[in-house]
Amino acid sequence: MEDIRQAPIGVFDSGVGGLTVAREIMRQIPNEKIVYFGDTARVPYGSKSKDTIIRFSRQIVHFLKTKGVKAVVVACNTASALALETLQPEMDIPVIGVVLPGAKVAAETTKNGKIGVIATESTIESHLYNRVIQAHNPQAEVFGKACPLFCPLVEEGWLKDPVTVEVANRYLEPLLATGIDTLVMGCTHYPLLRSTLREIMGDKVNLVNPAYETALELKALLEEKGLANDSQDIPAKGKYQFYVSDAANKFRRFANTILPIGVEDTWLIHIEDY
Amino acid sequence: MEDIRQAPIGVFDSGVGGLTVAREIMRQIPNEKIVYFGDTARVPYGSKSKDTIIRFSRQIVHFLKTKGVKAVVVACNTASALALETLQPEMDIPVIGVVLPGAKVAAETTKNGKIGVIATESTIESHLYNRVIQAHNPQAEVFGKACPLFCPLVEEGWLKDPVTVEVANRYLEPLLATGIDTLVMGCTHYPLLRSTLREIMGDKVNLVNPAYETALELKALLEEKGLANDSQDIPAKGKYQFYVSDAANKFRRFANTILPIGVEDTWLIHIEDY
Repeated sequence: MEDIRQAPIGVFDSGVGGLTVAREIMRQIPNEKIVYFGDTARVPYGSKSKDTIIRFSRQIVHFLKTKGVKAVVVACNTASALALETLQPEMDIPVIGVVLPGAKVAAETTKNGKIGVIATESTIESHLYNRVIQAHNPQAEVFGKACPLFCPLVEEGWLKDPVTVEVANRYLEPLLATGIDTLVMGCTHYPLLRSTLREIMGDKVNLVNPAYETALELKALLEEKGLANDSQDIPAKGKYQFYVSDAANKFRRFANTILPIGVEDTWLIHIEDY
Repeated sequence: MEDIRQAPIGVFDSGVGGLTVAREIMRQIPNEKIVYFGDTARVPYGSKSKDTIIRFSRQIVHFLKTKGVKAVVVACNTASALALETLQPEMDIPVIGVVLPGAKVAAETTKNGKIGVIATESTIESHLYNRVIQAHNPQAEVFGKACPLFCPLVEEGWLKDPVTVEVANRYLEPLLATGIDTLVMGCTHYPLLRSTLREIMGDKVNLVNPAYETALELKALLEEKGLANDSQDIPAKGKYQFYVSDAANKFRRFANTILPIGVEDTWLIHIEDY
């Protein structure tokens, strides 16, 4: 019988954004194998409905199960906000999202109780960040702001561009006016805009990266459940596997700009068959 | 036996952009019924691969056939550029796209033989505009430029915004430098940016709107094939029907800002079942 501890972690996102979560897992839990899936045929999720995001996420989790994963990380804020609650009870392995870890840290570290959340339209409309933050800190005030142009700007590669600065100024102005001391980067693309966000928000606002917090939470969860991989010699070949639903080469090029490893193979699958 | 001439025209797009084509059909051929499908669950198509766009388009054409359409208009430049050639021979009804009518007019009306094409990445990479323009005008020089931020800017509603002007300046600068006298708006969203494009390109550059040319071509085709609806009393109710794969209410709101009619019902279907 195979040792479940040596099974990989399944990580998925609507596209490339979840690679920022995969990157944190690689850094913080280097002993774990990863099977990543990016739903590049149906990206983005951020403007789509709850029913559709549940249907897409369920197919992806089914696919990841065929790869023998021991746990799943929903490395997409939109899918975490809209599909996780529905999927968790359907699964016989641990499934965690990125919203809870980020929201918890924001709730616990704010000093003035004013927290901003920037995310996709669907994530903001779900109000999940508000609910989780207020469950951990009932005094907290949460100010949400959808930033639909941030993902396309990141994918265009305009990370520090004057256009991006102007768009960010526009989106962040109402948040700045509220006097928040904490800002959750509630979409996996946004940490790639960190220096622009930092410049606008100033040094005193704490930028919370849910990707980082999620990797920490995953590490604790694996240890608690006796699922952590304690093997000392994981072969580099096949340690990290990448699957997408479209345009594998384009994904691989982007992945190679984000990840600390060289991504050689990316496999294309028909996700709607799962 | 039902009169085929009274059957509707099927019109589809990856989302809302094709409504600019539906609008032209409503204006120029007011006697025709329309069944519109917007693939809002999988929008956008502009950065996706040929295989995926063919698969998606084939499902949509199958769906439209179940509605008894007498002809199909691929009201999406990306699907026209990548899927039309494959789908046409599979169909027993006429199928036309938006690329050919736009390209033909550009090829025939340019005076200095220099034509610009702005479109999605996938449309530009297909080189279909170049091929069609040069087939009609072998002397023409075609300058293509992908403008991936235009669709998100239109969907954000920033049609005449300083940010949009700056982005447009950036994208159009290399085209201006070539001395083109004709610019094809090769994505169905772009006519909504017409006044910004006009301002940057100046009065001397002719802006070609493939939506307009496509409606003209459709009209001629229906007459030629004896398919034009000559009935004088088409009931307004049910004349224009709208189907989407996600977020029907959001679609309906957007449609009501674009169309000269009030859109009351929009139906949600699972397109991957077709």
